[in-house]
Amino acid sequence: MSRRAAQSTDPRVHPAMVLDDVVHQPTRLGILTLLAETGRADFPYLKTTLDLTDGNLGRHLEVLADHGLIAITKGYEGKRPRTWAEITRIGREALATQIAAMRQIVERVEQLPGV
Amino acid sequence: MSRRAAQSTDPRVHPAMVLDDVVHQPTRLGILTLLAETGRADFPYLKTTLDLTDGNLGRHLEVLADHGLIAITKGYEGKRPRTWAEITRIGREALATQIAAMRQIVERVEQLPGV
Repeated sequence: MSRRAAQSTDPRVHPAMVLDDVVHQPTRLGILTLLAETGRADFPYLKTTLDLTDGNLGRHLEVLADHGLIAITKGYEGKRPRTWAEITRIGREALATQIAAMRQIVERVEQLPGV
Repeated sequence: MSRRAAQSTDPRVHPAMVLDDVVHQPTRLGILTLLAETGRADFPYLKTTLDLTDGNLGRHLEVLADHGLIAITKGYEGKRPRTWAEITRIGREALATQIAAMRQIVERVEQLPGV
């Protein structure tokens, strides 16, 4: 779904259709949520907290970086290579849009008697 | 993600990792939310409300039915073929688990100053 669609406020558009797949995918949503909390985090922290493999985390960081939602910095701590990820302004905005749509869905479903 | 993981209440597990991809995918989440509201809906109603193509809606209904989250009934209204979808008990439970995880993520992010 495009970023444009994600910004729709048309009440005829179902809130689920406002969700942006780039942000919505569970692992990426987890990464963005953690980075919104911490600002910046290193690879081992994200890997452990979200219980991911190296390959899986690497792939999702790449997708987020390709969309400008996070910035990745590589460096060294002593002789050890380190990778940090940081949420960008665009990333915070995309997460805020996503969270607003999620809240609408949560409230719609929570008011139903049978669920 | 497995249904087992979706039921985790381990506080060390990040709520984003509790999300079940079968339910979480935006179109399927929209379908389940609508069916939780209406109980049963026909193909044109879902198609119009979620602004989907026939092929897209058909594919997602199939995934939901394959996982036992909805039941599909085919019949005729006069000479016209009709397809109805209905949420199952398993579907309501899966949606409730999903909504609880979504609420946790929403609340975590909403309490942050910068988002």
